[in-house]
Amino acid sequence: MPHFHNAKNSQRMSDSQGFGATRSGRHFLQVPGPTNVPDRVLLAMARPTMDHRSAAFSELTLEILPRLQKVFNATGPAIMFPSSATGAWEASIVNTLSPGDKVLMFDSGVFAGNWKTIAERYGLDIDLVACDWRVGVDPNVIEDKLKADTGHAIKAVMVVHNETSTGITNAIADARAAIDAASHPALYLVDAVSSGGSIEIRHDDWKIDVIVTGSQKGLMLPPGLSFNIVSEKALAMSESSRLPCSYWDWRDMVKANETGFFPYTPATNLMYGLLEALKMMEAEGMAAIYARHARHGEATRRALAAWGVENFCTVPEKSSNTVTAVKMPDGHNADELRKIISDRFDMSLGAGLGPLAGNVFRIGHLGDFNDLTLLGTLAGVEMGLSLAGVPANSGGVAAAMQYLAETAN
Amino acid sequence: MPHFHNAKNSQRMSDSQGFGATRSGRHFLQVPGPTNVPDRVLLAMARPTMDHRSAAFSELTLEILPRLQKVFNATGPAIMFPSSATGAWEASIVNTLSPGDKVLMFDSGVFAGNWKTIAERYGLDIDLVACDWRVGVDPNVIEDKLKADTGHAIKAVMVVHNETSTGITNAIADARAAIDAASHPALYLVDAVSSGGSIEIRHDDWKIDVIVTGSQKGLMLPPGLSFNIVSEKALAMSESSRLPCSYWDWRDMVKANETGFFPYTPATNLMYGLLEALKMMEAEGMAAIYARHARHGEATRRALAAWGVENFCTVPEKSSNTVTAVKMPDGHNADELRKIISDRFDMSLGAGLGPLAGNVFRIGHLGDFNDLTLLGTLAGVEMGLSLAGVPANSGGVAAAMQYLAETAN
Amino acid sequence: MPHFHNAKNSQRMSDSQGFGATRSGRHFLQVPGPTNVPDRVLLAMARPTMDHRSAAFSELTLEILPRLQKVFNATGPAIMFPSSATGAWEASIVNTLSPGDKVLMFDSGVFAGNWKTIAERYGLDIDLVACDWRVGVDPNVIEDKLKADTGHAIKAVMVVHNETSTGITNAIADARAAIDAASHPALYLVDAVSSGGSIEIRHDDWKIDVIVTGSQKGLMLPPGLSFNIVSEKALAMSESSRLPCSYWDWRDMVKANETGFFPYTPATNLMYGLLEALKMMEAEGMAAIYARHARHGEATRRALAAWGVENFCTVPEKSSNTVTAVKMPDGHNADELRKIISDRFDMSLGAGLGPLAGNVFRIGHLGDFNDLTLLGTLAGVEMGLSLAGVPANSGGVAAAMQYLAETAN
Amino acid sequence: MPHFHNAKNSQRMSDSQGFGATRSGRHFLQVPGPTNVPDRVLLAMARPTMDHRSAAFSELTLEILPRLQKVFNATGPAIMFPSSATGAWEASIVNTLSPGDKVLMFDSGVFAGNWKTIAERYGLDIDLVACDWRVGVDPNVIEDKLKADTGHAIKAVMVVHNETSTGITNAIADARAAIDAASHPALYLVDAVSSGGSIEIRHDDWKIDVIVTGSQKGLMLPPGLSFNIVSEKALAMSESSRLPCSYWDWRDMVKANETGFFPYTPATNLMYGLLEALKMMEAEGMAAIYARHARHGEATRRALAAWGVENFCTVPEKSSNTVTAVKMPDGHNADELRKIISDRFDMSLGAGLGPLAGNVFRIGHLGDFNDLTLLGTLAGVEMGLSLAGVPANSGGVAAAMQYLAETAN
Repeated sequence: MPHFHNAKNSQRMSDSQGFGATRSGRHFLQVPGPTNVPDRVLLAMARPTMDHRSAAFSELTLEILPRLQKVFNATGPAIMFPSSATGAWEASIVNTLSPGDKVLMFDSGVFAGNWKTIAERYGLDIDLVACDWRVGVDPNVIEDKLKADTGHAIKAVMVVHNETSTGITNAIADARAAIDAASHPALYLVDAVSSGGSIEIRHDDWKIDVIVTGSQKGLMLPPGLSFNIVSEKALAMSESSRLPCSYWDWRDMVKANETGFFPYTPATNLMYGLLEALKMMEAEGMAAIYARHARHGEATRRALAAWGVENFCTVPEKSSNTVTAVKMPDGHNADELRKIISDRFDMSLGAGLGPLAGNVFRIGHLGDFNDLTLLGTLAGVEMGLSLAGVPANSGGVAAAMQYLAETAN
Repeated sequence: MPHFHNAKNSQRMSDSQGFGATRSGRHFLQVPGPTNVPDRVLLAMARPTMDHRSAAFSELTLEILPRLQKVFNATGPAIMFPSSATGAWEASIVNTLSPGDKVLMFDSGVFAGNWKTIAERYGLDIDLVACDWRVGVDPNVIEDKLKADTGHAIKAVMVVHNETSTGITNAIADARAAIDAASHPALYLVDAVSSGGSIEIRHDDWKIDVIVTGSQKGLMLPPGLSFNIVSEKALAMSESSRLPCSYWDWRDMVKANETGFFPYTPATNLMYGLLEALKMMEAEGMAAIYARHARHGEATRRALAAWGVENFCTVPEKSSNTVTAVKMPDGHNADELRKIISDRFDMSLGAGLGPLAGNVFRIGHLGDFNDLTLLGTLAGVEMGLSLAGVPANSGGVAAAMQYLAETAN
Repeated sequence: MPHFHNAKNSQRMSDSQGFGATRSGRHFLQVPGPTNVPDRVLLAMARPTMDHRSAAFSELTLEILPRLQKVFNATGPAIMFPSSATGAWEASIVNTLSPGDKVLMFDSGVFAGNWKTIAERYGLDIDLVACDWRVGVDPNVIEDKLKADTGHAIKAVMVVHNETSTGITNAIADARAAIDAASHPALYLVDAVSSGGSIEIRHDDWKIDVIVTGSQKGLMLPPGLSFNIVSEKALAMSESSRLPCSYWDWRDMVKANETGFFPYTPATNLMYGLLEALKMMEAEGMAAIYARHARHGEATRRALAAWGVENFCTVPEKSSNTVTAVKMPDGHNADELRKIISDRFDMSLGAGLGPLAGNVFRIGHLGDFNDLTLLGTLAGVEMGLSLAGVPANSGGVAAAMQYLAETAN
Repeated sequence: MPHFHNAKNSQRMSDSQGFGATRSGRHFLQVPGPTNVPDRVLLAMARPTMDHRSAAFSELTLEILPRLQKVFNATGPAIMFPSSATGAWEASIVNTLSPGDKVLMFDSGVFAGNWKTIAERYGLDIDLVACDWRVGVDPNVIEDKLKADTGHAIKAVMVVHNETSTGITNAIADARAAIDAASHPALYLVDAVSSGGSIEIRHDDWKIDVIVTGSQKGLMLPPGLSFNIVSEKALAMSESSRLPCSYWDWRDMVKANETGFFPYTPATNLMYGLLEALKMMEAEGMAAIYARHARHGEATRRALAAWGVENFCTVPEKSSNTVTAVKMPDGHNADELRKIISDRFDMSLGAGLGPLAGNVFRIGHLGDFNDLTLLGTLAGVEMGLSLAGVPANSGGVAAAMQYLAETAN
């Protein structure tokens, strides 16, 4: 299983949504992130860059941080790095752990695997729990493992909330309950990269120690910012952690953030966009945002059912509301389908990653999104399936329309 | 029949695509203009305003004008006003005619009627030909009228190419043939507001004397620029016309344009956008643009047929490829339908105008547009019909998908 | 005296601030309009174009119109055209006057002359008062002329507030007093194109019947919108005026504007920018804006004095606070100087227009502007004078700095 | 000496250039980075975010990387991180060194010190050479130290090219010559954060192993991207380095970059801006860019001389062409001066950092910049000195004007 995304697969794509493209109309960017960035956010980012040591900049920071906490239902510090979410994974490790520390991780998908690679590179002792990628993480295993760890050798339990490669949303509250049931002091680290801002995650209530997330999914920004939402317990660990840590050091951040500043130059213009996105989220309301994603997830699944194609996720209640991974019928290649859809209908869909390459494609339905864009998306898939000769019924769009019409308000 | 658009109808709308709106996802702006302006064009317009008397500005103008001529297949001057297209209607009259001049006009729709109002206000003697609004202009009438006018009292034949209120594309080449058949010297003035840049119009080949058009439809710009494309014959008339004429004076324009300048301050930033839009059209190619609009028009008509609702246009070969007017079944109100679609699905559709208010709604499918956006649009209509209790079959989106898939390339 | 701007002069410029220019740093656009458009306004204009018949659009209009009235201290309607200010001149005439009406106009500069040309084209009977262009309009002449007009043949007195070609601000309140002293019922039409939003003008208090202005000066927008601010008396005249009038018809506008709509498609995206600009003006406050312009006008005049070059305006209290016209010493050509400044320092200055070509250059110091940009501007002039071999002292920038430092707060 | 920037100092500023500020005119952002980002770059960044695994994205990357190499006169890989330049410092260390490795560093300023802190945190054995901060790095010391290191314990020589806190440009070619004179195999790591793209640096010719730089200075972008330009020798070291390394791993990058992709999600929209900036640099030409910075540096120094204030840099030939640090006369506080200038003239200047707080202020004159903006900047300083009661002559702006006029072309 490759640790990083396979550029070669990507290269096979001949889509032209791109940079200097001249196709008519708006490209459908339906990968599961980066998501479609609202115009308001893009234009906010085009404001002149400012002095990051000015009082006005400090005000900007102090407008952002409390709103971020609110999105994650957290009272602990929200820490923001100029980096991709991969950096925030690293930050979650280097601030809290020490060389040789034992951690419990799950082989639940490609991104879980990428996080594990970082842990390996930092010399952690990984207890990797095998999972059925079509099922995801089993909280009972956590309870069993932690109960068996009477010596408290396990320092952290690391779970991916929404596995972007498989379209599975793991039960983070249940995993917390499992840790509690074992009365184990391990830290609880959660990757919420493709759930944050779209699927509910309760930092305080679920006693999560570190949430890892990024800007380019539910937060509706371009890539370039990543986040750790940190508990007091995790923050305290950063005092004793013995992994080398500089860029990612929470302590420098927390201290400087108090007055609205940063220990090094922050990504000013992305922060302009972030504040705009957070204001949009505030206006829509988090409950409405979750409901919207749930409704679009369900509409997508109804389309799959009508087409007679398989959701890669086999556990209905764990089907992701932000991304649906579709299993190709045997003998049919997902990348060929994606190429047809890209060439004919100017839509980007997510490739199958790692061992799923060719066998799965992924539909992103998260971020700044609405019913008609979803239906255009599903129409592109339905036409693509037909053109690619993939055995599938028509009627997926019709099923989604029926559900969306019934539930519109 | 009111001369101007009915604000009261508009006000009944409660759509919120608007200015400070916070609905998730991109608004579907499917009125038949203003059309969806490409990001490239919007961002081009955000460049700093420049000195309109500088050499650099002159270069900008001289990049634009020949490209405009090409779009309209014209060798005569393309004249550009900072105004809405209503101003370009006025310019077509005041530059070429004199008080009391007889003109042949057609009561073929609301916009034909608006043009007539201007002619009235300038004291022209209008021979208004009654038309069936669902059929449009009959070229035979032109031939008959002109043959009967042996004294050449008729100074101009004024026809709307694509009547935005009815979704009918009149046969401009046939009307030219009719004028020729009568060997009549009348000027030939054509409103191409909602066809220009989307449906072929051949200024030179069809010996059109003045094309009237605007920026906010096929040219993919915001409103604020209007155009006259002028023949040598029309330009010569501007020397002897006795209607008062200042802002709209072609002669000042043509003279200043020679060196890339204008007789008064031009709308600089809209011109930035115009050049960008013209470059996009050049890249796509006019033949491809026409074919794209024809294909989307046909897909829309197939959806109507599947729904079992009536195209307001009753002459298949005159169905517009840029806008489809849908006749509501008796007892159902188009504005109620549009309100439902706007409220539930965040899509703007065109209202029925003038006497068609409530009886017709209009789907714009022109400008910067593609298959999946069309399918999202049609899905919004199909769901809306269902929610509004309008008697209609489902299957319109499916019919459009089938056609689009078959013809995709 | 030519009626329109001389494109040939402009062409002689080889400045390269332009469209695709690659010079480092920000171009200094110091013509007296278009002015430097704030980034906030440019980015507001880049928002997606909206349906101009939607409720949301109506809200936009109704946010704009009262703010416009406030800028002009008016209770009567503020009417907005998609056009350059030249169109608003025309509108002021065709809505209020009838063929052959006698009007009192002043040969006080190039733009006064351009307005006169429109009046001529509409067949008005113009009593043109000769003026010393370096002195401007004498209110006593108005009083004398109106007193002599016992039969009230004069239907309108038409004065330019701030003559952009000469840098002279005529005394609009005094001219009003002169009309009152004559107890004459003539309408009072005022061109405030380069004063509106920068130099105080009191529509109601000074009983102005029509203010004519445009978007690209003190209102800090790109060109493309123009305005009439209208008294009840003027509006009533529009009922009986017998000049042909359609695009410019106030009555259609006022009626549609009541509900936030327009009789024809408005320039939506420029309106986005206008609201943003009006909000900025509101935040700064009109009194502060006037004081700022007065301070920058004075600093500029102190620089002229220190250089020992002549202000074209010879009446100190009439020196414009938005534009300073500089008279070249004999034997030196303003366009050569401007070319040097453009080539070496990437700054656009205003040319001498009409009979002033070559003899005058103009420094715009209005709109979105501040002390350091003014000093950069004056530095460009001071260096240019030296490089062009124009006899002038150094020390102009120093004089301006001293004044600005003394008056900074 | 504090390791990171002092937020408290920053907070003392009350400048209001900021986010929602409503001051008229354009803020003068004359800190030594972030620099003024050109409109072209800001608008390029506002384009829709794209799929970073598409062929079109690959093309974007492959347009950028060779241009970056050219700016640094390098044939080795240019590596780009979504991070601030602080991250690229860390990357230069973790890719090449191992725990306990000895490195030669210089206490030549605040940023040299920040780099050292990272080295400490990674457990390197630092031979820190004391420097006079007003003089900078002495290449002779390098030669002596390396000659003395006959066992080749020193693994890297780490020098800051342009020390942003002191305004000193160290002689990177001379330092290379010193290493060569000692025939020592140590790696040569150079911080070019505030010189890259503005002051010549020759990666290949000077046998630099790693250049560290960031986006927000000479590259004219907002902050958020950082760079390592890497030699084959350094790249080979990354195979054997034993510091933990994941996010910063060059090997993942170099491999993925070959086909235009990245090992994790790149900062797409900043890359749009980067390509635009690189095209602007290409158009101006690197030699012209260096000459422009040298000319502006000299003009600034002439202003200082005329004012009679001290350049913090005491070695004329090492005075930086991108930033000038001004030493305050005894008894006068730089932050008070900066506050006056910010409040009255809306200009941000750089604070004195670390031990220089209050004693130094810094003028940035780099990036997208021109003569008139420099003169506005110097005018703001000259007026500020006067208002703050700092003993200084007038005449600085005049001296700069004279020099700029003499050397303009």
